[in-house]
Amino acid sequence: MGSIAEIYRIFTLCHDFEMNFLNFFKRRAYLDFAAATPLDPQVAKVMRQYEAIDFANPSAIHKEGVRARAAVESARQKIATTLGIRAEGVLFTGSGTESNNLAILGYVKYLARERGVAYSDMEIVTTALEHPSVGSLLPILESTGVVVRQVPVNEFGQITTKALAEVLSAKTVLVTFAYANSEIGVVQNISRLARQVRESEKKFGTKIVIHIDAAQAPLWLPCEMVRLGVDMLSLDAGKCFGPKGVGVLARRGGVALLPIMYGGGQEQGLRPGTESAAAIVGAASAIEKAQTLHIKRAEEVMKVRDRAIALILKELPGTVLNGPTGVDRLANNINFSLPRFDTEYAVVYLDTYGVAASTKSACAGAGGGESVVVKAITNDAERARSTIRLSLGPKSTLSEVALAVKILKRFCEKMTPLTK
Amino acid sequence: MGSIAEIYRIFTLCHDFEMNFLNFFKRRAYLDFAAATPLDPQVAKVMRQYEAIDFANPSAIHKEGVRARAAVESARQKIATTLGIRAEGVLFTGSGTESNNLAILGYVKYLARERGVAYSDMEIVTTALEHPSVGSLLPILESTGVVVRQVPVNEFGQITTKALAEVLSAKTVLVTFAYANSEIGVVQNISRLARQVRESEKKFGTKIVIHIDAAQAPLWLPCEMVRLGVDMLSLDAGKCFGPKGVGVLARRGGVALLPIMYGGGQEQGLRPGTESAAAIVGAASAIEKAQTLHIKRAEEVMKVRDRAIALILKELPGTVLNGPTGVDRLANNINFSLPRFDTEYAVVYLDTYGVAASTKSACAGAGGGESVVVKAITNDAERARSTIRLSLGPKSTLSEVALAVKILKRFCEKMTPLTK
Repeated sequence: MGSIAEIYRIFTLCHDFEMNFLNFFKRRAYLDFAAATPLDPQVAKVMRQYEAIDFANPSAIHKEGVRARAAVESARQKIATTLGIRAEGVLFTGSGTESNNLAILGYVKYLARERGVAYSDMEIVTTALEHPSVGSLLPILESTGVVVRQVPVNEFGQITTKALAEVLSAKTVLVTFAYANSEIGVVQNISRLARQVRESEKKFGTKIVIHIDAAQAPLWLPCEMVRLGVDMLSLDAGKCFGPKGVGVLARRGGVALLPIMYGGGQEQGLRPGTESAAAIVGAASAIEKAQTLHIKRAEEVMKVRDRAIALILKELPGTVLNGPTGVDRLANNINFSLPRFDTEYAVVYLDTYGVAASTKSACAGAGGGESVVVKAITNDAERARSTIRLSLGPKSTLSEVALAVKILKRFCEKMTPLTK
Repeated sequence: MGSIAEIYRIFTLCHDFEMNFLNFFKRRAYLDFAAATPLDPQVAKVMRQYEAIDFANPSAIHKEGVRARAAVESARQKIATTLGIRAEGVLFTGSGTESNNLAILGYVKYLARERGVAYSDMEIVTTALEHPSVGSLLPILESTGVVVRQVPVNEFGQITTKALAEVLSAKTVLVTFAYANSEIGVVQNISRLARQVRESEKKFGTKIVIHIDAAQAPLWLPCEMVRLGVDMLSLDAGKCFGPKGVGVLARRGGVALLPIMYGGGQEQGLRPGTESAAAIVGAASAIEKAQTLHIKRAEEVMKVRDRAIALILKELPGTVLNGPTGVDRLANNINFSLPRFDTEYAVVYLDTYGVAASTKSACAGAGGGESVVVKAITNDAERARSTIRLSLGPKSTLSEVALAVKILKRFCEKMTPLTK
C-alpha cells in the first residue's frame, strides 16, 4: 500500500501525469556525453592494479617504483602509437585544460625566454569559438603584448583556408583551435588548414606551431598527428570513458616548451608532481580504445544523430540547428536553438522528466547566458541565448532523443515564448 | 622437480645464499611511504560510485551533474571540518605540487596585479630545506624581482623563532615552509613560528601570509589551521592513502589569489578544469581518516621508529642520524648517512634483497647525488651524498627495519668504503 501511495504522491507532485508516467517507468536518458563520460569498466579494471598494488612513486628506484614507472612509460608508448608519434612526444597533465594551458603559455614562454622573441613580435591565430581553456588564455597573452588574431568563421563555424591565409603573417608563431567544437560540434578540416599554415611558413620563411584542442575528438575522429599535420594536440581522458583528472599534451617534432608549474623534474621537467600511474594507465587504455573503435562508433552514432536532428526540426517548430551537418559535424553532437524560449528552464524541464541535457559547454557555465559560440557564428543574440545541446554516447538511441523531443514539445506548448 | 630447480636457480643467481634465502621466504618490506602510499580500500570504495554512476560534470545543471556537485561540495566540507576552516577555504588541485605553486605564485601574482605591489617590494621567507615544488619556485620569483630570504636552520633542520624574527622585514609578504620535511622528517613548531610572524606583522604594521606545505603531515600530525595559526596549507591525497593526482590548497581568512591556469570558472575561478568527483571524494575520505587516526598511529609508529633508529645506530658502525629525535621528528621518518658508502647502490642492494627504500625525496631524484636538505643542515658533503631514508607506514614493523639493517650490514661488510 505504501508503494502505491508513493507512486500517487510522485505523480501528483508535478502537474503532468503523462510526463510523470513516462518518467516513472523509463530509465533516465543521459545526453550530455560531451560534458562527461563514465569510466569504462575495462579501463577501471586495468587501473586497479596501480592503485593499491603497484602504487609506488614512479621516480623511486626500487622494484615497486620501477613497476609504476614501467606502467607510466608503457601508457606513454600506447598513446604515442595511437597518435602516430614518438613516446617522448607524450606528456601527461592533470586535464585537457592544463594541456591547453601548457601548450599555449608554455610555447610563448619558451619563445620569449629561451629564444628572445619579444612578446609584441608574436602573433597567435585562433577563433572566437574556442573552449574557455583556450579562450581565457587570450587576454592573459594580450596583456604581455602578444597579438591575438581571430580567423573569422563561416555560419557553420568552419574556418576556411582562405580566411586562415589572410590572418597568418610573418609574426605568427602559433595557430590554435579546437579539432571539434564542444558546443556546436563543428569539425575543422585540420589537415587542409595545416597545409595552409605550412604554405604560409614557406612564404614567410618562419616556423608556425599548430596546436589543436582535441578533447572532443578521440571517440569520433581520427587523431593521428601526422595525418592531421599538427605539432601539438591536447586530450582529456575524462571525455572518452577514461578517468577524470588526467590530460595529455602530445607533441610532434620536438616542439620546445617551458613549464607553467615548477617542482620535481617529472615529465621532462615540463609537468611536476608525482605521476598517478593508475590514472595514466587508465587514460592510455581509454584513448587507445576510443581510437580503435572510432570509425564504427562514429558511423553508428551519426545515423542516430541525423534521424534525431530530423525529428527535432520536424516536431519542434521554429527550431534552428546550430553548426554544420554530415561529416563536418561531430558524430554525437546535436545543438539547436529554440528562439524566444528560456532554454535554461527547458534543460531543467528535460531533467525533471528524465533527460540530462545542457545549454552549452559545462566549462562555459552550464546554465543561462548567451552561447559565445553560437553568437560568433550567427551574430544572433536571440539564437545564442536559446541553445540546447544533446550530446550522444556510443549507445544512445533515437528513442532517448524522442523522449527529449516529446518533453520539449510539451515545454513549448506550455511556455509562452519570451517576448524579445 | 621443476620448482626445486627453480629455487636453486634463483639462489645461485646472486652470490649470497643467506640473503637470497631470506628474500625468498619473506614478503618484501616497503619502507618508502613518504614517496607514495597505496589507495586505502575504504577510500577506493567511496570513489567507485563517482567513477561510473555519478560520473557527470559537476558544472552541469541536470540531476547527474547536481549529484556530482553535491559529492564535490560534501568532500570540500569534510576537509574544511577536518582542518577547522570554512568550506570556501578549500580548493581542489591536481597535486601537492600544484597546491604549492598556486599558493605561492598565485599570492605574489595577486599582490602584483590586484594590489599594485612592485615585485621588488616583496620579500618571501623560506628555508633551504624545501621540497622542489617550493624550492624550484624561488628562482622564478627572483627573476621577477621578488627577494627570497632563507631562514637559517639549526643542525636538526629546525627553524628557531629568533632566526625567523631576524629575517622578517616590513617587506615580507609571505612565509612558506614545510610542516614536516619529507627527507629528514624535521617537524617545525608551526604555531610558535606563526606567533612570531604575527608579532612581526604588528611591529611592521603589515600583513604576512603564512603558507605551509603539509604534504607529509596528515597521517602523523594535527592539521587544524587555527591551532597552527597558518593562512594557507597544501595537502596531497596520494601521500595519505588517497588517490594520486589530487591536492588541496586550504585557505583561512580569505587569502586572495590569482590563478596560475586559465579556463572554466571552477574552484572559485582559481583552478579550471572539470572536477573529478571520484578523486575529490577519495581525497576527502583519506584526509579525514588520516586526521582521525593520526594521534594513535603516530604514537605506535614512533615506537617502531625509535627502536629502529637505535638498532641502525648500534648495528651499522659509522652511521649518523640526520634530523631531530622525539616529537620533533615525523613519526614515520628514519634518515641516516653511511659516510663513504655509495648509498644509491645500497638502496639498489636493499631492493635486491627485498626492501624498498630511498636515498632522499623521489621528487628530488630518487637516485644518486647530494641531498640538498642534509647538506643544508650539516654542511657536510660526504654526509649529504650518503643518505638513506626509510619511511614507515602505519603497519610497518621493527622486523622489516631489522631486515633492512641486516642487508645493509652485509652491504657494508662487502663494499669497501669509497675513498674521499
